[in-house]
Amino acid sequence: MRAEIIAVGTELLLGQTVNTNATYLSQGLAELGIDVYFQTVVGDNDTRIRQAIELARSRADLILFTGGLGPTLDDLTKDALAAYLGKAIHIHEPSMVKIETMFASRGIHMVESNRRQANIIEGSDALMNDAGLAVGNAMSVNGTHYVLLPGPPREMKPMFDGPAKAWLRSILGEERKLYSRLLKFAGIGESSLEQAIIDLIEQQSDPTIAPYAKEGEVAIRISTKALSEQEASVRLDQTEERIKERVGKHLFAREDIPLEEAVLRLLRESGRKLASAESLTGGLLAQLITNIPGSSGEFLGGVVTYTNLMKHKLLSIPMSQLEGPGAPGAISESTASLMAERVRELTGSDFGVSLTGVAGPSESEGKPVGLVYFGIAEQGKPTIVHTAELSGSRGIIRVRAAKAVLYRLWQVLSSAE
Amino acid sequence: MRAEIIAVGTELLLGQTVNTNATYLSQGLAELGIDVYFQTVVGDNDTRIRQAIELARSRADLILFTGGLGPTLDDLTKDALAAYLGKAIHIHEPSMVKIETMFASRGIHMVESNRRQANIIEGSDALMNDAGLAVGNAMSVNGTHYVLLPGPPREMKPMFDGPAKAWLRSILGEERKLYSRLLKFAGIGESSLEQAIIDLIEQQSDPTIAPYAKEGEVAIRISTKALSEQEASVRLDQTEERIKERVGKHLFAREDIPLEEAVLRLLRESGRKLASAESLTGGLLAQLITNIPGSSGEFLGGVVTYTNLMKHKLLSIPMSQLEGPGAPGAISESTASLMAERVRELTGSDFGVSLTGVAGPSESEGKPVGLVYFGIAEQGKPTIVHTAELSGSRGIIRVRAAKAVLYRLWQVLSSAE
Repeated sequence: MRAEIIAVGTELLLGQTVNTNATYLSQGLAELGIDVYFQTVVGDNDTRIRQAIELARSRADLILFTGGLGPTLDDLTKDALAAYLGKAIHIHEPSMVKIETMFASRGIHMVESNRRQANIIEGSDALMNDAGLAVGNAMSVNGTHYVLLPGPPREMKPMFDGPAKAWLRSILGEERKLYSRLLKFAGIGESSLEQAIIDLIEQQSDPTIAPYAKEGEVAIRISTKALSEQEASVRLDQTEERIKERVGKHLFAREDIPLEEAVLRLLRESGRKLASAESLTGGLLAQLITNIPGSSGEFLGGVVTYTNLMKHKLLSIPMSQLEGPGAPGAISESTASLMAERVRELTGSDFGVSLTGVAGPSESEGKPVGLVYFGIAEQGKPTIVHTAELSGSRGIIRVRAAKAVLYRLWQVLSSAE
Repeated sequence: MRAEIIAVGTELLLGQTVNTNATYLSQGLAELGIDVYFQTVVGDNDTRIRQAIELARSRADLILFTGGLGPTLDDLTKDALAAYLGKAIHIHEPSMVKIETMFASRGIHMVESNRRQANIIEGSDALMNDAGLAVGNAMSVNGTHYVLLPGPPREMKPMFDGPAKAWLRSILGEERKLYSRLLKFAGIGESSLEQAIIDLIEQQSDPTIAPYAKEGEVAIRISTKALSEQEASVRLDQTEERIKERVGKHLFAREDIPLEEAVLRLLRESGRKLASAESLTGGLLAQLITNIPGSSGEFLGGVVTYTNLMKHKLLSIPMSQLEGPGAPGAISESTASLMAERVRELTGSDFGVSLTGVAGPSESEGKPVGLVYFGIAEQGKPTIVHTAELSGSRGIIRVRAAKAVLYRLWQVLSSAE
């Protein structure tokens, strides 16, 4: 099956938004074994959207749209496709009820245009939107399949991964299905990971091995087409074993969870609690952890001691440690150690972790951008401090630093098992 | 002039690379006053590249290519365009000399295919590559303009900004340029903002008015084509005034900065300091603020009191306030007030802000998902507590809550001026 992705939105043509949706959909379609031959971007213009549909229909069996499902007059995708296909627009009642309920519960007056988000094209299947109001659409007309997804990535991704993929699988109707497994690694860069298994990647035919990079984490997806899950498992297990022989010590999960969730699970299993003291990451570590539902069971809380005065006031670190001639300074191994220990004592947690360093854009205390110290204090054990020299922008250094301390904590927790 | 961008590369269709080149070029073309009507992505396939050229020629005056100028057999852009136009390929001598010199100086044997990077199409202008080996091309044939740029962004960007823009300016002549201004709003949703100015949007011709939504913030871009910046300013000022009459109280910036940066600037101007106490946002507010370089001047730090015990231990809030029969509970107006006051006192800051509420996915203390209390404590003034009922996923509620307290703080700071 050949697919074309049409992203609708003038903001894309003005360069105000990066078309990450096309990337996400292309990856997902590749995993389903669907070839993408073209990606198109078109503005919020009825005539040009219809031209793009006409063209895509001539060269693809499946057309995926993103964007243009919202409430405003600029949101034209459903209307343009309906007009092109000569179909009417209906209200999808469950979506309408959801929209009305949302506005009523918030006590806000509903603007009439919000009703547009419940529209679906006559004869189409509704794709429910768990993260927003605009309902998606899927339909097959004269041998061409159409899938309409919203533009905001936080709405588009769950709709594609859930109802849209289920719908696509039903039209693919293959006997052999694609089974895949995600392996997640930390504490190793994408290049190093790829280098370690390059021969496996190059020899690959079935299962296929595809590495993906995220900030501070790397994932490998291994996929195979099989008649049953059992048949697939045998092949995926073999490939996983070969990968683990090389880089097994960096493997923290066999499913798509972030490192902080793997850490929380190990804490939960061992009944232990965590607290954090952050300087350069400014709350990012706590934010990553508390983004996981139920994290309050293991994460007690923390302090953001962004200035020396706060390290002194909140963590009782002597000013003589932080400033003045001969002082180790805030960005030092001993300060990282003290921060981790003091936050552990202050909160009464089993583990205290700390981060101090230079996020940039300019150096600090004469220390270079990217230099980070992070500490792990554990009750009844000597405190461990690691050093890292990270590269990237301010934002990337902050994420990598947070992931680095999580990886070391994961190592401590998993080796203790 | 109408432009189309064709990005060539199978890696884009597999979702392995994000098409940031299209975004960069679209921005640059908008600045030159050139309208982009379509962006296309096509794989490394001669037939489909020629199809994309044929199509683009039918609907654009200017076609920009990125990618496919490298040394490998997969790099087909120049050959495909030359064949389409019925032109020969020549060696561009200065580029050939540069390639040979580079290999000689490094003492590396030059593979024959590297010579391909010095190819240019007969009758075209060479665009020098300061960051790599592949020479670019620009030419006008039968009224259509073609510009060929390399794929790697670190080569593409300087070639576009330097020789390609100069070439484009020469073919544009003295045309009118596009001037635009971004207005940023908070404390108002996209639909409500649009509703408030719907008549202005519908009447728009010049300047144009385009709203954009981000989490907890909304932007409006107003744009006009003019012969000079002065001429543009007059028109943009008039439109801005009409918008401000309706929704001026929500306008926090006239440039592309996040709300937290606007807050930091107001703090800086008035020489005041901020500290935060977060429960449901778990460090997200501190993280947003400290992501701004230089924020340590105004943001002292904060606490993440994710559990009741931490609210007690770190902020000395009595347990009788938080738990037990008849206690207000952690998610209450009075706890929000205490959190804001205590973190202000603890840190010695001028302002203390707090957030407590239910991020979800399930209710807490019998209170519904999305209910948030946030406090603003200011030295010598009564503490203000606001309530919000937010919707969305756990992650979205957390972002909206953080932006809501920032908006209220921005109001306090800007009204005090």
